[in-house]
Amino acid sequence: MKIQISKSYLNESIQHVSKAISSRTTIPILTGIKFDVSYTGVTLTASDTDISIQSFIPAEDNDKTIVQIDRAGSVVLPAKFFVEIIKKLPSSEIEMEVRDGFQTFIRSGATDIQLVGLDPEEFPVLPSIEENQQISIPGDLLKNMIKQTAFSISTQETTPILTGVLWNLNESELKFVATDRHRLASRTVHMSEDTGVRFSNVVIAGKTLNELSKIIPDQNTLLDIVVADNQVLFKIDRVLFYSRILDGTYPDTSKIIPTNFKTEIVIDTKKLADSIDRAYLLSREEKTNIVRMQTLDNGAVEISSSSSELGKVTEQLEVSRFEGEPLRISFNSKYMLDVLKVIESEQLAIQFTGVMSPIIIKPQDDSRSLYIILPYRTTN
Amino acid sequence: MKIQISKSYLNESIQHVSKAISSRTTIPILTGIKFDVSYTGVTLTASDTDISIQSFIPAEDNDKTIVQIDRAGSVVLPAKFFVEIIKKLPSSEIEMEVRDGFQTFIRSGATDIQLVGLDPEEFPVLPSIEENQQISIPGDLLKNMIKQTAFSISTQETTPILTGVLWNLNESELKFVATDRHRLASRTVHMSEDTGVRFSNVVIAGKTLNELSKIIPDQNTLLDIVVADNQVLFKIDRVLFYSRILDGTYPDTSKIIPTNFKTEIVIDTKKLADSIDRAYLLSREEKTNIVRMQTLDNGAVEISSSSSELGKVTEQLEVSRFEGEPLRISFNSKYMLDVLKVIESEQLAIQFTGVMSPIIIKPQDDSRSLYIILPYRTTN
Repeated sequence: MKIQISKSYLNESIQHVSKAISSRTTIPILTGIKFDVSYTGVTLTASDTDISIQSFIPAEDNDKTIVQIDRAGSVVLPAKFFVEIIKKLPSSEIEMEVRDGFQTFIRSGATDIQLVGLDPEEFPVLPSIEENQQISIPGDLLKNMIKQTAFSISTQETTPILTGVLWNLNESELKFVATDRHRLASRTVHMSEDTGVRFSNVVIAGKTLNELSKIIPDQNTLLDIVVADNQVLFKIDRVLFYSRILDGTYPDTSKIIPTNFKTEIVIDTKKLADSIDRAYLLSREEKTNIVRMQTLDNGAVEISSSSSELGKVTEQLEVSRFEGEPLRISFNSKYMLDVLKVIESEQLAIQFTGVMSPIIIKPQDDSRSLYIILPYRTTN
Repeated sequence: MKIQISKSYLNESIQHVSKAISSRTTIPILTGIKFDVSYTGVTLTASDTDISIQSFIPAEDNDKTIVQIDRAGSVVLPAKFFVEIIKKLPSSEIEMEVRDGFQTFIRSGATDIQLVGLDPEEFPVLPSIEENQQISIPGDLLKNMIKQTAFSISTQETTPILTGVLWNLNESELKFVATDRHRLASRTVHMSEDTGVRFSNVVIAGKTLNELSKIIPDQNTLLDIVVADNQVLFKIDRVLFYSRILDGTYPDTSKIIPTNFKTEIVIDTKKLADSIDRAYLLSREEKTNIVRMQTLDNGAVEISSSSSELGKVTEQLEVSRFEGEPLRISFNSKYMLDVLKVIESEQLAIQFTGVMSPIIIKPQDDSRSLYIILPYRTTN
């Protein structure tokens, strides 16, 4: 293998695939990035067995030569050092040559680097995926759906299935659900056309979806998603992102979502977030994060928290609408803030059925999102 | 005590004094900020016994009312929570009232906070300092002198005196020296007038100087420095910053600074820094940070490093001047990068007397700075 390649293209590809590099891997070959050079371009691959990312650099892009290929071939190079050194090379052009025993020579400007390469035959083969179950979705919409659900996953490895986000697709709707048993986030999107594709119980690790989000460009471009038996493949421009589907059956969450309520308030999202943020600051010192919310006779809502050592915070908030019974409830303010942060609607509705029943939060101008927080049982 | 105070002024003062709050203190009263309200304004004080910072908020500033004082008095409030909540209060005006048992009521907009205050009598009294040894220095110059020396202090608590920066003042020059026994940084400034003030062996903790730097405004304003027996007081606008002088005698460093040399090269600072940064990346993987430098027959300099597992990096750099014997030397590249980062001169001179003698680095257009790095003894 012998090439001359544009530093900026190489750097961009390395940034993409390096998201699949795990610093904790025990398999030496997986600490590397695989280079495959053919006469059409260079393919970079990295994998931590859960995620595999492949990025293609074409020999030509818009009639401009990106890679000049003198000799095809393959090699695996140590990722950690390689990622950092490429960024810092002095010239915008980089020469790479692999010689006997995978010794790799890299030259840029007056810098010469000699790297111990590894045998590409040792690198695991990417899963082969049947492409008959494929849907398309705008990149920014997918990013948004991930942001609005993935924060509710469980971080406990004792129930691995809950560390993922559940995806279900029926004829008209794609739905994401995440829960850690104390809270739940769900987001639905209406599919513009029925492609005949259906799936259920597709659970993808939240960590993986967050890495995927970083690769999805901000422009509103369509990306393709292929769902197979135990793998999902995301096709983003010249990047292929493979993720394992988590084993196991996701619990049925439909039963914990209350269908009626005794109290509903509609309130300004930003004002509620600021108010709970202040109460949270104090509750954090108690290590409980407990904040109380109660309706007042004057129609306002009182947010409060207290700390035995420090004191207490109390504030009143006006509501846009109040319906139903008076209410006094305690909850984890961190969970509430996580929800308020991802709600884009100016107003939101909070629904309650009782002090020990799930609290429901719904953005006012968006019927596609639903959040649930379980309250705390407190003595006062 | 009862006041109404501008949130922005209060916030700025809190930011200043909170730099003296240590999270590791075992003295409960020192986790707080002391408020002293008189009819001229509010004084905030915080201390960790090594550093004490006092900030004054005047009742009026440029004919604008900053603090409306209804009742004078004092209280100590819990710093950690207070610092964060003040930033997040909804209104630009804050009411504070201290009642029985130092219970403190804070109100801003619709937010009510009740804090458990502590008795201000328990707060340590600030050191009284005789102001007969006082000098003035532009704030940005002092900041620069700290930046260019403090990085070379020792982080080992086994030799406490080396965790500080040595200050000496004779009739014409103020000199800073820092060393951790492996490297040394020194910076001198010519005093425009002889104030008659002299001192030597004034050693101030590097950590303290870095905190001081954050408070010094970027504008080129003069600040006053009062040096007493075991304390230094910095007067910065409305802030008083007290620092303890470290106990002990600073070692004599004059003997380790070579007075002659066998080889001198003059080289571009930025190019040398970039080159050593690349070699450092590889040397870091070996956990040694060792980089080699050698003169070549063609008059250039070669920078190189190697890692048994990864490979090697080699580069050639042109020099502006080369004088004396050929040279091959190894050093800690992290130490060299630390020096190159603070040198503002475009060109620098490096002087060598032998493979085991100190390496001297001097900015070309600045005779007031001098850096020394001890080389490594290596086998190749």
